[in-house]
Amino acid sequence: MNTILEQKFSVPFHYPVCFTEDLFDPTNRIFVEVLKGDRIPKVLFVIDSGVADTHPTLISQIKSYAQAHSNSFILATEPMIVTGGEACKNDETLYHKVVEATHLFGIDRHSYIAVIGGGAVLDMVGFAAAISHRGIRLIRIPTTVLSQNDSAVGVKNSINAFGKKNYLGTFTPPVAVLNDFNFLKTLDDRDWRAGISEAIKVALIKDLSFFEWLESKAEALARREMEPMKVHIIRSAKMHMDHIAGKDPFEFGSSRPLDFGHWAAHKLEKLSDFRIRHGEAVAIGIALDSAYSFLQGRIGEEDLIRIIRTMKTLGFDLFAPELKGENLIQGLKEFQEHLGGQLTIMLLEKLGKGVEVHEMDSDLIYKSVELLHSIQENSSLIPS
Amino acid sequence: MNTILEQKFSVPFHYPVCFTEDLFDPTNRIFVEVLKGDRIPKVLFVIDSGVADTHPTLISQIKSYAQAHSNSFILATEPMIVTGGEACKNDETLYHKVVEATHLFGIDRHSYIAVIGGGAVLDMVGFAAAISHRGIRLIRIPTTVLSQNDSAVGVKNSINAFGKKNYLGTFTPPVAVLNDFNFLKTLDDRDWRAGISEAIKVALIKDLSFFEWLESKAEALARREMEPMKVHIIRSAKMHMDHIAGKDPFEFGSSRPLDFGHWAAHKLEKLSDFRIRHGEAVAIGIALDSAYSFLQGRIGEEDLIRIIRTMKTLGFDLFAPELKGENLIQGLKEFQEHLGGQLTIMLLEKLGKGVEVHEMDSDLIYKSVELLHSIQENSSLIPS
Repeated sequence: MNTILEQKFSVPFHYPVCFTEDLFDPTNRIFVEVLKGDRIPKVLFVIDSGVADTHPTLISQIKSYAQAHSNSFILATEPMIVTGGEACKNDETLYHKVVEATHLFGIDRHSYIAVIGGGAVLDMVGFAAAISHRGIRLIRIPTTVLSQNDSAVGVKNSINAFGKKNYLGTFTPPVAVLNDFNFLKTLDDRDWRAGISEAIKVALIKDLSFFEWLESKAEALARREMEPMKVHIIRSAKMHMDHIAGKDPFEFGSSRPLDFGHWAAHKLEKLSDFRIRHGEAVAIGIALDSAYSFLQGRIGEEDLIRIIRTMKTLGFDLFAPELKGENLIQGLKEFQEHLGGQLTIMLLEKLGKGVEVHEMDSDLIYKSVELLHSIQENSSLIPS
Repeated sequence: MNTILEQKFSVPFHYPVCFTEDLFDPTNRIFVEVLKGDRIPKVLFVIDSGVADTHPTLISQIKSYAQAHSNSFILATEPMIVTGGEACKNDETLYHKVVEATHLFGIDRHSYIAVIGGGAVLDMVGFAAAISHRGIRLIRIPTTVLSQNDSAVGVKNSINAFGKKNYLGTFTPPVAVLNDFNFLKTLDDRDWRAGISEAIKVALIKDLSFFEWLESKAEALARREMEPMKVHIIRSAKMHMDHIAGKDPFEFGSSRPLDFGHWAAHKLEKLSDFRIRHGEAVAIGIALDSAYSFLQGRIGEEDLIRIIRTMKTLGFDLFAPELKGENLIQGLKEFQEHLGGQLTIMLLEKLGKGVEVHEMDSDLIYKSVELLHSIQENSSLIPS
C-alpha cells in the first residue's frame, strides 16, 4: 500500500534594478540602501580586470565609499580583480578562486559579493556566489550595455564546460542590480554597440514601437549619444524583467521566447573562438533568423530591409565566415540540448511579433546564410 | 536622477514524496508516474556503491523495469555506481564524474537523474544535477532511515570543501522522492538506528506526542521491527516537509529551528574524520544540547532522563572523546558562518517545544560535556 505526500510551496523573490551615475560617490546612497540584516555586513568586491584597467581610481573610490559608510558595511578584504571577458568562464580555476575567497574571508550567507564587470564576469562570479554556502547574497554592478540592458537583470549565472557555453550554472536571483551609466562612457566602440542587439532582439519579437524607436535612434546611438543609450537600456531591461517575472523564471518548461537569434549566436561565438563577442553574434543571429523568416514567407522584404538597415546603421557586421559549412547547423542540436526537451526556435511572424517553431530546414538555413553573404558582398541590402 | 525598477515574482515548486515497496517491480507504476514531458525522457541512474553491493540484483531489476516501461522512459546508459558514504562528498572528482556523464550521455534539462542511495550520495549527485544545464530533473530514491525520514524530502544538496561540511551546494527541490522501505531491511544496525535521531530531534522541538510515541516504540525499533519504522519515517518526513513549506524554504533568513543538536553534530563528524556517522553525531548533539538546556534550568531532570533513556534504548552512544577539548566550541562559529548572520541555536524550552537562543556559554557547554561523560562512565542516567 503506497502513501503519497504532496509537497507544495512558492519561493518569493524581490530585488531592485537601479539606474544611476557615480555609484561610489559618497553622497550616492543606492549601494548602502540595498544592504539588509541585523548586523553590519561584510562585502567582498570582485572586479573585472577590463574595468579595473579603464577605471584606475575605482578601487580607491570604493575604499573611500566604504569608509564614508562604515556604519552600513565593511570591506571583507581588498577588492579582487578577475580576468574579464569570456575567458573567465572557460578557465575553471577562476571561479574556484572566488569560491576560495568566500572561505578565506568568512563570507557567509548574510554577507555580500558585489561584482563589477561585463556579463561574463557577472556570470562567473554569480555562479561562485550561488554555490558557496548554498548562496551568498549577490549585488550585480554591470558595466557594459549588454549586461545593463539584458543579462544582469536576469536570474542566471554560469561558466562554460566541455566546450559548451553556460554548461554549469544555476537560476539564482541577485539581491540587487546597480547600473551606473558612467561605466558605458569608457567602453570601446564594439562593446558600446554589441549590447544594442539584445534590445533589437526583444523589440523585434515583442514590441514594434520599441523597434521603430531604435530604428529612429540608430544613427544617434552609433554617434555614441548618451541620452538614447540610457533610454534604451531602461526600456530593454524592463522588457527582460517583465518576461522573466511573467512566465517561468527558472525555465522549467520549454518556452524561451526571448532567445530570438540565439541558437546561431551561441554557436558562432564558439566557432570563432570568441573573436565574435556575444552581442555581435546575436546581431548576426538576428539577421540570419530574420532572413530565414523572410525566405519562409513570414515577413516581407521591406521588413527584412528595415532590420538589416537598422543594424548596419549601428555598425554591426551581419556576416561571418563561420556561418559557412556544416558546423553551424550543429548549433541547433546544442541549443535544444541546453534548453532541454523539444527544439523550440523563435522566428518572426511580423515586425514586433515572434512565433515559436519546432523545426528548422537545413537547406533554408544555408540559403539564409547565402543571402546574408550576398548582402555583405554587394553592400546592397537585399539582392534582387 | 535615479530610476528604480522593482522585480518581483514567486517560483512555485511541487513534488510528491512517495512511500512504497518493490519500487522496481514492473507492476509498480510509481516511478513512471512521476515522469513528465512531451517526449519519452532519458533517465540516468546513479547508484550508491553500498546499495549496489547489498542489492546485487538491483541493476538487472532496473533494466527489466525500463524494458517493461519503454513507452515511458529510456535508460541513458548503464547505471553508474558511485562511492557511498561521506567520502563521496569530500572527493570532488566524484561529482565531476556525474557532471561529465550528463555531458557524455546528453542528459538535458528535461531528462532525469534518478539517484539511489544514502544521504551523502543524494547530496553529491543532487549537486551535480542542480548545476548541470542549470538543473536537471532529480528523482531521489533514498535508501537509509536518515534520508527517508529527513534529508531526502528537503530542498538541499551539497558537497564538502575546505574541510567544511556542505560548503558547496544549492537549494534545488527534487521532482520526486521515492522511498522504498525494502532498502531498510539490509541496513546494518548502525544505519538502521542512526536516522532515528532526526525524528527525535524534530519531535523534541515540535511535537511532544510524537516524542512520546518514539519513547514507547524505542524497544521495538531497537529490535528492528518494520511497522514502527515505517510509521515513524512517514511522520518525520511529513514534519520536515511542513517545516520547509511553511516558512523559508531557501533559508534567506536566520531562523533554522529544525537544526536542534546540529552545531555539535557537524563538528563531531569532522573531528572524528567521519567515523561517527551523521545520525549518530546528531544523537550526541541532541544529548549535549538537552543537557545544556537542563543545566540552564530550561528543562527538568526527569525530561533529560526521558531523552537520554529513549536514545540509550535505541542503542545510541551519547558520548564521544571528540567532545572534550577546545575544538568542539569552534563548531559554534562554523555553524554560524554556514548559516550566515547572527548565531542562532535551538535549545529545549520543554519536551516538544524548542526555543531559539543567540549565544551559548562555553563553561556551560563544557559542563554539559562532563555530564554526558559521567552518564557514560557510570552508566546511571543522571548522577546525583
